[in-house]
Amino acid sequence: MISRHDPQLKSFASDNYAGVHPEILRAIADANGGHQIAYGDDVYTEALREVFQRHFGERAQAWPVFNGTAANVVSLRAMTAQWEAVICSETAHIHTDEGGAPEVVGGIKLLTVPTPDGKLTPELIDRQAWGFGDVHRSQPRVVSISNTTELGTLYTPEEIAAVCAHAHDRGLLVHLDGSRLTNAAAALDVPMRALTTDAGVDVLSFGGTKIGLLYGEAVVVLNPEAATGIDYLRKTFMQLSSKMRFVSAQFEALLSGDLWLRNARQANAMGRRLAAAVRDIPGVEVPRPVQANAVFAVLPREVTERLQKRFRFYTWNEATGEVRWMCAFDTTEADVDAFAAAVREEMH
Amino acid sequence: MISRHDPQLKSFASDNYAGVHPEILRAIADANGGHQIAYGDDVYTEALREVFQRHFGERAQAWPVFNGTAANVVSLRAMTAQWEAVICSETAHIHTDEGGAPEVVGGIKLLTVPTPDGKLTPELIDRQAWGFGDVHRSQPRVVSISNTTELGTLYTPEEIAAVCAHAHDRGLLVHLDGSRLTNAAAALDVPMRALTTDAGVDVLSFGGTKIGLLYGEAVVVLNPEAATGIDYLRKTFMQLSSKMRFVSAQFEALLSGDLWLRNARQANAMGRRLAAAVRDIPGVEVPRPVQANAVFAVLPREVTERLQKRFRFYTWNEATGEVRWMCAFDTTEADVDAFAAAVREEMH
Amino acid sequence: MISRHDPQLKSFASDNYAGVHPEILRAIADANGGHQIAYGDDVYTEALREVFQRHFGERAQAWPVFNGTAANVVSLRAMTAQWEAVICSETAHIHTDEGGAPEVVGGIKLLTVPTPDGKLTPELIDRQAWGFGDVHRSQPRVVSISNTTELGTLYTPEEIAAVCAHAHDRGLLVHLDGSRLTNAAAALDVPMRALTTDAGVDVLSFGGTKIGLLYGEAVVVLNPEAATGIDYLRKTFMQLSSKMRFVSAQFEALLSGDLWLRNARQANAMGRRLAAAVRDIPGVEVPRPVQANAVFAVLPREVTERLQKRFRFYTWNEATGEVRWMCAFDTTEADVDAFAAAVREEMH
Amino acid sequence: MISRHDPQLKSFASDNYAGVHPEILRAIADANGGHQIAYGDDVYTEALREVFQRHFGERAQAWPVFNGTAANVVSLRAMTAQWEAVICSETAHIHTDEGGAPEVVGGIKLLTVPTPDGKLTPELIDRQAWGFGDVHRSQPRVVSISNTTELGTLYTPEEIAAVCAHAHDRGLLVHLDGSRLTNAAAALDVPMRALTTDAGVDVLSFGGTKIGLLYGEAVVVLNPEAATGIDYLRKTFMQLSSKMRFVSAQFEALLSGDLWLRNARQANAMGRRLAAAVRDIPGVEVPRPVQANAVFAVLPREVTERLQKRFRFYTWNEATGEVRWMCAFDTTEADVDAFAAAVREEMH
Repeated sequence: MISRHDPQLKSFASDNYAGVHPEILRAIADANGGHQIAYGDDVYTEALREVFQRHFGERAQAWPVFNGTAANVVSLRAMTAQWEAVICSETAHIHTDEGGAPEVVGGIKLLTVPTPDGKLTPELIDRQAWGFGDVHRSQPRVVSISNTTELGTLYTPEEIAAVCAHAHDRGLLVHLDGSRLTNAAAALDVPMRALTTDAGVDVLSFGGTKIGLLYGEAVVVLNPEAATGIDYLRKTFMQLSSKMRFVSAQFEALLSGDLWLRNARQANAMGRRLAAAVRDIPGVEVPRPVQANAVFAVLPREVTERLQKRFRFYTWNEATGEVRWMCAFDTTEADVDAFAAAVREEMH
Repeated sequence: MISRHDPQLKSFASDNYAGVHPEILRAIADANGGHQIAYGDDVYTEALREVFQRHFGERAQAWPVFNGTAANVVSLRAMTAQWEAVICSETAHIHTDEGGAPEVVGGIKLLTVPTPDGKLTPELIDRQAWGFGDVHRSQPRVVSISNTTELGTLYTPEEIAAVCAHAHDRGLLVHLDGSRLTNAAAALDVPMRALTTDAGVDVLSFGGTKIGLLYGEAVVVLNPEAATGIDYLRKTFMQLSSKMRFVSAQFEALLSGDLWLRNARQANAMGRRLAAAVRDIPGVEVPRPVQANAVFAVLPREVTERLQKRFRFYTWNEATGEVRWMCAFDTTEADVDAFAAAVREEMH
Repeated sequence: MISRHDPQLKSFASDNYAGVHPEILRAIADANGGHQIAYGDDVYTEALREVFQRHFGERAQAWPVFNGTAANVVSLRAMTAQWEAVICSETAHIHTDEGGAPEVVGGIKLLTVPTPDGKLTPELIDRQAWGFGDVHRSQPRVVSISNTTELGTLYTPEEIAAVCAHAHDRGLLVHLDGSRLTNAAAALDVPMRALTTDAGVDVLSFGGTKIGLLYGEAVVVLNPEAATGIDYLRKTFMQLSSKMRFVSAQFEALLSGDLWLRNARQANAMGRRLAAAVRDIPGVEVPRPVQANAVFAVLPREVTERLQKRFRFYTWNEATGEVRWMCAFDTTEADVDAFAAAVREEMH
Repeated sequence: MISRHDPQLKSFASDNYAGVHPEILRAIADANGGHQIAYGDDVYTEALREVFQRHFGERAQAWPVFNGTAANVVSLRAMTAQWEAVICSETAHIHTDEGGAPEVVGGIKLLTVPTPDGKLTPELIDRQAWGFGDVHRSQPRVVSISNTTELGTLYTPEEIAAVCAHAHDRGLLVHLDGSRLTNAAAALDVPMRALTTDAGVDVLSFGGTKIGLLYGEAVVVLNPEAATGIDYLRKTFMQLSSKMRFVSAQFEALLSGDLWLRNARQANAMGRRLAAAVRDIPGVEVPRPVQANAVFAVLPREVTERLQKRFRFYTWNEATGEVRWMCAFDTTEADVDAFAAAVREEMH
């Protein structure tokens, strides 16, 4: 087989459109050959423990799973009893983009809160953190936040610490959907543990795919008292990879050196570059802060349509004409410049 | 990173212990670079349709998923309403080895039947195919069989046709867990469709991982009237890969030529070679027919213990001392001979 | 046993605090003695079919269940596939007061909309009625409304017809939580079918307990194409009463004559009387329209506390000091007058 | 409304065909009138605690629910994590007659064991009590037995103690489906606690409906360490009765005096009388021991058909022609004699 597509072609639709970073592919090849114990009892998975602890502290333990939906559902299920619920933003990925997996597969009720920028605050949490002890109400048990958020915004370490302190005061645990945690840490120039362990997060869904892995996310328990049964839940929730050595080898390649940081910095830099390049085009509005690798813009609908014939990207809000442009770890300056030029062209 | 393990070392524990076939790894590399639409709207997944149709007929449609548990649960859920149940052998993988996924995640009741050799027959199906219209009884709706079975045995095309004819007469659908369908087809020297589409199977879980893929199985609907909603169920059941082009590229590499057949023949031939090599060792009993890549043997417990220090394999039945030896696509004659020699040594 | 409580004592906490109407108790006694087929194949349940058809049209079919939570969950489950979701008001009982039953037991995702008065409109429905065909989004399939609403407000037949027409245009079905449908019909002085069948509602949860039954609600399918499998779902969802003749006899007593209407009118009249009696008390605010048997009032917290020592009722909103007073079918003018007098006293 | 059926007519189909014992109906009437707190915070439910403790010991706590399916599902769910399974007989009601509720609604996997007489033993438990710590296997956590069994047989206190001791040794809990526990205790002439608390049972589903209640069963936790969250689970699993005072009043009437024992003795005596009356009829075989209120008989099919035109009862096994005759608390000597005479007639 030869390649069925033009490997030069980039889009601005999603960091999931990117392929695999060459160092990741090499790590898979290096782990190939011979036999290794299946289902996670291999030497690569064993080595992974120390890698995650270096980033997230001595109490951290990671369970690789296949995708982000699963990392979230397994995390939340491990943190809750069947009568307990999860507070999240109305724009949270677990609410809007998982095909109902938390409810349908996990049996987990979500209690949503409208947020202006995708971010929860102590005050917003309290909109749903009530009714404790009332059997008629699903019992709030977990606050789930995302960093970066679905709107491309960031929580600072202080903001996360405030969320965690408030949640813990209320008897709630904190889950962080870190599908793009690497982008957040790179953007803020802090270690990942500043945004998680040190801020009081209990359980983390750590994202690998968007930042260069072939496949693989991880449930990372930072507070061992906050979650139970993940060994079993991962299997029952259909997330136990037989040839897990290869998932673990990818994570090791991503996290043992600075690959995660290089990739995240590149994606973020391209986001900033794109925002800068389009911000002054008359008729283009960039309505949200560009803090990592997502750029939201409002364009005339006909411009969007013409542009989408040249580059793939998604309309975020049909009503307002807002579109979303994502940069990936493999987006280059040339890609951005070509795209910005196209925007400028179509606006004229 | 360099390899953390000895790539020369083989085990006889499971075909999941093997790595990735080089042609598969190359297909992944060939599909890398540039951007492709995520979540299955890519050109590789598009190409896959025709590949599966060539093997399974014009009505076949395949949905890649991450693992075999998921292929089974998504298949069975797509074939049943919430009050309908699945008839299977007491030794079926869906009953014994999925961590309860069908019941816990899928909400699917299994109605099991004891079988001598892991195989259902029309008569055995009728042990559970009753109570239609009685609201107190979970309504039987699907018969699920495996080929090869968990006991290493095979259904012939005629046997599957008999199961399907009987099931359809009773108003039941047929699901085939084809985690090792390639091994079955190679052993019987028939095309895969002789064991599936042509025999009347409605939905198939097609196994890729054990036969050389890095990861990837597929729900393959052979009778479009037998299943609904798989596009949605795959997402909701946390099985929609974002970078799906790579799963599809693997399947194309496996199925577009004869890689699947070469791999299956190799594994099966090694199974036969191993059986032949140990059968005449005094004190070793081979109690089941060796029809594909699994060899079951009864050994003295102390021999098993000594042997397991040299080669990994599993005890199948603690009570009887029966062990299971699996050969993989990458098991060589030298591997088998070394292992058989070890068995002989430890028996003396 | 003698009565353990003072049968003269009334509260204003909930219409669930009331007992059983004497005519209902008599119907139970009349159905007693001898044997009847269990699980709904009895003559009382058979007779019920015609009773419901008289109220809801020839296509109506009713399945009695134990409680309102179950009526809602069974209705919604029968109307949806596993990947489909239900649009409802943020204040809907199914979202706020069922202990998460739709999600946890039913595996049903709710898509909520903020509403000023507990009522959905075509415009509000569209806040969630989108994303059709997108596998990442739970597919909207049902609009669920309540009449009366949890805020004591009413939909008119025209308003329901508008909701249904819009929903059907969008390919959505309509479920009506009629826990207090009798109160709504009595308040509007229309037959119940004007608010349901004739307005286009597809499936109804019909409430019996609050209007005088000992126990019993019913799933009533008005559009047979809108729901499947209720015979089975009722059993699987643990709602099949073995001695169902007694549930059916209660419904017959309620619905074959005008008992439902007498009871509803009494409760509603008492609601109006209470509102009239307290509205002019200085310091008491009645912030919502009083359209049926619920009166919402805002009082000083210390007054609420003193009053709650004399009469049971619930605080609706801790933040604003709003309380809810419910009248039941057995609330008398004397009960209302005594309570209003107490409010007046405590305000001074 | 007058009675729609002949109150003199009795059947031998099920103890669920009987109506309500007059003392139970009176207790409901006595609890009527006035208002009581809904959802179980009433004085009747409060009083119930002591009633159950008198029968089952000081640590016992009861949660009334609507039906037996629910008592079983709530009990089992409260005893297990999501990855844990329940061992039961292949003929257990939870496996054969709950419409799949444990799996579909509860997400609970059942591991069944063939039994000759519906009874588990330590040896039979061990057929499924293995695989602890293996994530691929649903983790056995509960042994569920029924007394009397679905085959009309009894466990003695010693047999239950042996089951419990063995289960506890294996780290398993014991659930007893006591849908007919009263019959078992009456038949053995022992207090109910001899068969439950004193024998080591952890959680009990206590049956009320079959022994004379209008409706109502109870989850009774005997070992408080064995179950969690029942307050919440009962609500979430749609089993929280709003007018619970009436369920509790029924249980008090049944259990505070000897009504339960009188009713059970009557049903059992009628079972024995029936067995004695038919045993010597040529061509009638009574293949199982008659230990309580169930009589199994094997008759020629045509005799069964003729007899079923005169009296309702169920065929237990179509293949063998075995039928089941159940006596209820209201079955009289005259009823039995008339039925036995009919059997004798039809056999000639």
